[in-house]
Amino acid sequence: MLISRAAALVAMLCAPPVLAQTMADAVTEFELDNGMQVIVVEDHRAPVVQHMVWYRAGSADEPAGSSGIAHFLEHLMFKGTDTLESGELSSTVAANGGRDNAFTSYDYTAYFQRVAADRLGLMMQMEADRMRNLRMTEDEILSERNVILEERNQRVDNNPRGLFNEQLNAAQYLNHRYGVPIIGWRHEMETLDREAAIEFYDRHYAPNNAVLVVSGDVTPDEVLALAREHYGPIPANPDITERVRPQEPPQNAERRVIYRDARVAQPYVARSYLAPERNSGDQDKAAALFLLSDVLGSGPTAYLKQVLEYDQKVATYVGAFYSGVSLDQTSFDLVIVPAEGVSLEDAEAALDAAIASFIETGVDPEQLDRIKMQLRASQIYALDNVDGIANLYGRALTSGLTVEDIEAWPELLQTVTGEDIVEAARSVLVPETSVTGWLMQDKEVTQ
Amino acid sequence: MLISRAAALVAMLCAPPVLAQTMADAVTEFELDNGMQVIVVEDHRAPVVQHMVWYRAGSADEPAGSSGIAHFLEHLMFKGTDTLESGELSSTVAANGGRDNAFTSYDYTAYFQRVAADRLGLMMQMEADRMRNLRMTEDEILSERNVILEERNQRVDNNPRGLFNEQLNAAQYLNHRYGVPIIGWRHEMETLDREAAIEFYDRHYAPNNAVLVVSGDVTPDEVLALAREHYGPIPANPDITERVRPQEPPQNAERRVIYRDARVAQPYVARSYLAPERNSGDQDKAAALFLLSDVLGSGPTAYLKQVLEYDQKVATYVGAFYSGVSLDQTSFDLVIVPAEGVSLEDAEAALDAAIASFIETGVDPEQLDRIKMQLRASQIYALDNVDGIANLYGRALTSGLTVEDIEAWPELLQTVTGEDIVEAARSVLVPETSVTGWLMQDKEVTQ
Repeated sequence: MLISRAAALVAMLCAPPVLAQTMADAVTEFELDNGMQVIVVEDHRAPVVQHMVWYRAGSADEPAGSSGIAHFLEHLMFKGTDTLESGELSSTVAANGGRDNAFTSYDYTAYFQRVAADRLGLMMQMEADRMRNLRMTEDEILSERNVILEERNQRVDNNPRGLFNEQLNAAQYLNHRYGVPIIGWRHEMETLDREAAIEFYDRHYAPNNAVLVVSGDVTPDEVLALAREHYGPIPANPDITERVRPQEPPQNAERRVIYRDARVAQPYVARSYLAPERNSGDQDKAAALFLLSDVLGSGPTAYLKQVLEYDQKVATYVGAFYSGVSLDQTSFDLVIVPAEGVSLEDAEAALDAAIASFIETGVDPEQLDRIKMQLRASQIYALDNVDGIANLYGRALTSGLTVEDIEAWPELLQTVTGEDIVEAARSVLVPETSVTGWLMQDKEVTQ
Repeated sequence: MLISRAAALVAMLCAPPVLAQTMADAVTEFELDNGMQVIVVEDHRAPVVQHMVWYRAGSADEPAGSSGIAHFLEHLMFKGTDTLESGELSSTVAANGGRDNAFTSYDYTAYFQRVAADRLGLMMQMEADRMRNLRMTEDEILSERNVILEERNQRVDNNPRGLFNEQLNAAQYLNHRYGVPIIGWRHEMETLDREAAIEFYDRHYAPNNAVLVVSGDVTPDEVLALAREHYGPIPANPDITERVRPQEPPQNAERRVIYRDARVAQPYVARSYLAPERNSGDQDKAAALFLLSDVLGSGPTAYLKQVLEYDQKVATYVGAFYSGVSLDQTSFDLVIVPAEGVSLEDAEAALDAAIASFIETGVDPEQLDRIKMQLRASQIYALDNVDGIANLYGRALTSGLTVEDIEAWPELLQTVTGEDIVEAARSVLVPETSVTGWLMQDKEVTQ
């Protein structure tokens, strides 16, 4: 499985942070002697448990020329070990009434099982086993490579939006590997081999580069005891270093990408801006951007929806997106789908005019209060979804944030002012760092 | 010193290939036992010699995150060795009445001295010395880093065209390091250190990764004897491998870059297309593109000049550029400077219409004959410039070509037909792989 930036955004929006006070009650943090971080989220309403291991290694940690290796390795992790047959881990989970899967993103790769709480030890035993004893044959490599190539076919090559997003991302980043697709460029995926997989595995898969997140019907003491038993014996990898990747140079020229495809059913305009991410101890600007995306594009009272969908009727859909959970610089994204008879050019001009008038007008205090109230409410509802909390911790802790950052975030959002939001818009929504994409129908037969 | 893509183009145009037959007479090729390639170009009209060592290592061979290290090392090569003081090589050349310098490009780094012919042994002695015995102190590293940062200031940061070209290049390449500037991104240059320089030096500087090119008043036997004496004892580096770099994925979305700068005196439109390079044994398409650039944009009778400068008067300058000497995929470039009162938009539309009408109309056979005749003539005149020939060999041999490819090129150009040229235009000048740049005056005060 593989998470795109957009999917991560959606996940973020569906599982917003929970209230610090209540969240802190349910969350316990440990660290094993070998450096493995452990997070426990208690929820005793049902006798089930979710067991996740998150590695601080994603596609943006890949060596140049080997795009897709993080995701390929994720697939290969379901092959055998010294004691597990290929596929045996998943079949054991299923035989125990559970389900398992994995996902790869720019900044992390994660593996999880959801099973009856009394099977947690078995899950850890198998997960710890494949953390260091992975075996893969040449045959498995070749056949699994066909699987990821077919996955790319389905997700990207057969999907105009997928291809469009790939070209937009590549234009957004001039130097950083966030410009390279998580699933990989096809021509590089075709060359991925056992050696590349083993190199990535040896370099990144170690307890001191992993976060264990267990949620559900468990106590912290139980989890700690089991973690010590199963993960404790794995030695730390002393070669794990700080994650330093090539960063962006100043972006000083506005970019545009026009993608034409006969398969496009609905043309639209995508606009992205390079944007700061949430940094540990420094989340203020990100908080303002998070609320900016809500004020502009979330819910029926959002500014852009009001202006462009209801008043001017130039759009059938407008959206604004910002996650902020990212190890390095991320993006603030806008989308406008023009109404029937409105050109992409006119839709884009209307979008830009609406943003300019928003910056001029400022934030409606009542709307901001409403949004903050909704955030509080959704943070409370989110407590019902411990797996969502577990995901939130795993994602944040592998993206440069700490437990303190996560717990500070909900209250931080409440302190953001209308002025903060306008200032964030003014400084981030600038042409120099932007990419504007037009997804167009290719009706004409070109020579 | 540093060669930009545009400068390399200009150099190529100023020193076109010479006639195979005549050129072959003057050129001799050897290989030393340690794998060092040796090219000798004889010219006995004056008692001088040019001694060059070209390394198959340029900015596109740098590790990600260390942009500028190839060029930085070029500077550091003028520091000391075990037996030469810092700066002593250049001062020795000057004391012997000569001059020396060096340059770095995407695919190579070259060092040269021009001196009296009887000093060739001394030049080789010093050049061989710094091929393996380079020493550099931390102080030298820090002060020379300021030199390259200042060089970047002058060439790029204080120059709107430099900044514009940098952003265009970054947009042209989605994956390949040709998208990263030769001089480096400033924020990465600031981190370059002794360790990075030594790593690049150890990895790439070795006789089996170098081409020795000597031109002037020498005989092949003399050169070979001296080369054996001075370069022969240096062991080959067995770790030198084939140069495989991350290649481009399919480019399927047209890109546009708009750069605004208050310092822009003359706005213009730049258009580039990803284009195949000259490959060893496979130069036909490149030959057609080379003639296409001549037919479209070189000399007063060029098609685009006729249509856009003289007939429609929408441009004060139009140019078309293609070199083809490149290890990996290169670009075909167009530039149009609009006439007074003509907008960039209109100039671009006129350019596109002119290209379309060219493809429709085909090549004027008389113009093509004239161009081929001029190429023959310039190839003969080029023989007067042996240093130009030496450069040509050095550049081609470090860009994936062989002596045979170089010698076949002039005749290959003569065989290109009008249909070949139109077919090359039709297949290469397509929107999907293109970048269009607008360099604009930034007159308005933006918020």
